[in-house]
Amino acid sequence: MVNVLIAYASDYGSTRKMAEAIAQGVVEEGGQPVLRLAEEASAEDLLASDAILLGTPVHMGSPDWRLKKLIDSVFSRLWMKDALVGRVGGVFATGGGFGGGGGGAEIAVLALLNNLAEMGMVLVPLPKNTPGYAQGGLQWGPYARTHDAAGVPAGVDEGQLEAARYHGRNVARVAQLLKEQRVFAHEPIERIA
Amino acid sequence: MVNVLIAYASDYGSTRKMAEAIAQGVVEEGGQPVLRLAEEASAEDLLASDAILLGTPVHMGSPDWRLKKLIDSVFSRLWMKDALVGRVGGVFATGGGFGGGGGGAEIAVLALLNNLAEMGMVLVPLPKNTPGYAQGGLQWGPYARTHDAAGVPAGVDEGQLEAARYHGRNVARVAQLLKEQRVFAHEPIERIA
Amino acid sequence: MVNVLIAYASDYGSTRKMAEAIAQGVVEEGGQPVLRLAEEASAEDLLASDAILLGTPVHMGSPDWRLKKLIDSVFSRLWMKDALVGRVGGVFATGGGFGGGGGGAEIAVLALLNNLAEMGMVLVPLPKNTPGYAQGGLQWGPYARTHDAAGVPAGVDEGQLEAARYHGRNVARVAQLLKEQRVFAHEPIERIA
Amino acid sequence: MVNVLIAYASDYGSTRKMAEAIAQGVVEEGGQPVLRLAEEASAEDLLASDAILLGTPVHMGSPDWRLKKLIDSVFSRLWMKDALVGRVGGVFATGGGFGGGGGGAEIAVLALLNNLAEMGMVLVPLPKNTPGYAQGGLQWGPYARTHDAAGVPAGVDEGQLEAARYHGRNVARVAQLLKEQRVFAHEPIERIA
Repeated sequence: MVNVLIAYASDYGSTRKMAEAIAQGVVEEGGQPVLRLAEEASAEDLLASDAILLGTPVHMGSPDWRLKKLIDSVFSRLWMKDALVGRVGGVFATGGGFGGGGGGAEIAVLALLNNLAEMGMVLVPLPKNTPGYAQGGLQWGPYARTHDAAGVPAGVDEGQLEAARYHGRNVARVAQLLKEQRVFAHEPIERIA
Repeated sequence: MVNVLIAYASDYGSTRKMAEAIAQGVVEEGGQPVLRLAEEASAEDLLASDAILLGTPVHMGSPDWRLKKLIDSVFSRLWMKDALVGRVGGVFATGGGFGGGGGGAEIAVLALLNNLAEMGMVLVPLPKNTPGYAQGGLQWGPYARTHDAAGVPAGVDEGQLEAARYHGRNVARVAQLLKEQRVFAHEPIERIA
Repeated sequence: MVNVLIAYASDYGSTRKMAEAIAQGVVEEGGQPVLRLAEEASAEDLLASDAILLGTPVHMGSPDWRLKKLIDSVFSRLWMKDALVGRVGGVFATGGGFGGGGGGAEIAVLALLNNLAEMGMVLVPLPKNTPGYAQGGLQWGPYARTHDAAGVPAGVDEGQLEAARYHGRNVARVAQLLKEQRVFAHEPIERIA
Repeated sequence: MVNVLIAYASDYGSTRKMAEAIAQGVVEEGGQPVLRLAEEASAEDLLASDAILLGTPVHMGSPDWRLKKLIDSVFSRLWMKDALVGRVGGVFATGGGFGGGGGGAEIAVLALLNNLAEMGMVLVPLPKNTPGYAQGGLQWGPYARTHDAAGVPAGVDEGQLEAARYHGRNVARVAQLLKEQRVFAHEPIERIA
């Protein structure tokens, strides 16, 4: 069984809904999801996890500052010790914006994926053949656009939640296959945790 | 009067339509647009321009290879001579994809903007209050999503063309204000061109 | 005369040194620099500026969370009103890291430039022929690498400060040329400020 | 045993050296490396691979156009069929540039990683504790800076080759663990290959 931490920020509940759908997917694969708001996630939460998913509303084309504070103050200390090397990571987001281009969503989730790459974590994207991709698809991870192109609120739809649920399943599956393995040739046999 | 080069690739004509709308905007500001397919644009075209716009269909989340060949083989030689430093640049794109996140459009146009930054060019984004932004808006430059979220073709719409037209106007206006000025403190008084 | 806001975060003083060098460059062009820590910059500071520069230490491959908090809580309110459209923006950074690839600096400054693009601001990169570029050059803006490839601290060197100073000069010059102009075709004649 | 395709472009041999070091790492893990120039790699090569590594010299802050042509003309056809979903991907690069920020290397390798994410491939970054990281480290994959900060050529050094070799080992190990597994919940049992 794998432990999957889902750390997120949420303003009006949309990102929380996506986080819960991901958690459901983790459960469907026999994993144990742990949901944490960004300001509550601790180093112990990170160390106890086989996989970590970070989720955010898109603010000005980048992640919510509470996520970045978590990265700077909690992840960074574990980065120094290489404590999460070889674990599994993924990202997700919600947003509004205008036009057909995602309103900055892509750079926002990529910023979080970059932080996970810095930790030396294996990264799980969202394949195009994922159920719900037509509604919630983005190559880097599921994205729930909660407003239409003109900015009118529409909420999170079923397809977007389905993409999120499958992302949770995917991350749990990869984590299960890599768990307890020394996936990187230079990884210490005994993990710091 | 400013000369504005619009270099683009186009598969089925959508990017060409956006390029023509941009050209119309340039004309509305009293500028002289020059349209070139990526494989036809020459060093002389670049040197004769006060501003350069690069446009591409989104292929696999990045620009069409013909744009990159233009960058590698023509721009790069001028990069070595700092020949375009202080001129004005902008980008635009068209694409399909799935979901509400733009299908890779953002990283694609950013790649081109990066190339223009390497040239030392002043970069013109697309403000949110641009007419047509609700249809064709993206912070980096106009983006015409030519398929809906499920992948059904819908063509380029009027709002997207309007955003493109205003982008042409914006780039021409900035180029007019910076033309013949030594905008950078270390720029040679006489330009190489 | 132009007002140039320089908002930054600094841990050990390196980013502050870069900010001060930029301020000196602004003065050399007859401009008025205003230095603010990220947590102190106000909406009034932003509105009073013709140009804004954002600077950060690189933390885990992205900007310090205090910058992001400034973006989310202060910039975002002005974004809603399009209040900074047509003004001039630039970025700078300091960092350590390992290897020859910048340790995440590029994505970090790009994140801030993205935020400025969302505001509809004209973006000033750092041309390759800028004095100090061999030490402090990066296409998006000056970058002071304060540790060598193996992670040994070396401080900010003169070339890096020179690149920063010229970046301040460049931003001030572009801001002077665009000031009071309606650089974008759809910009209101009277600015909100 | 895993098959690992290493597709790359090379101008003066530096990227080829990195590719060969990666191939050596694959062999050390009992895998079978296949080296291909970008213009020679075929759909059959891709389909026969458990993992794919893409390598490029950095040109103007992005990958060599020959890589992009490979992506647009060969990868894109397999993208339509979801034929590489669940396989393993990685990237590497070489470059010169100025300053301490990598001269555009980061965005360049990220562009390739983006292409692999579009394919639905599990992505392997380069952990900070990889041997050779002080010389050839970058979070997204090994990077050999072949010129010093002032642009003087220095060639590929042993540490950079060591980072590349370990990257090959890492990718082979992850591919071995995921091979023949349906790592994604929606993946067809029988792969198209």
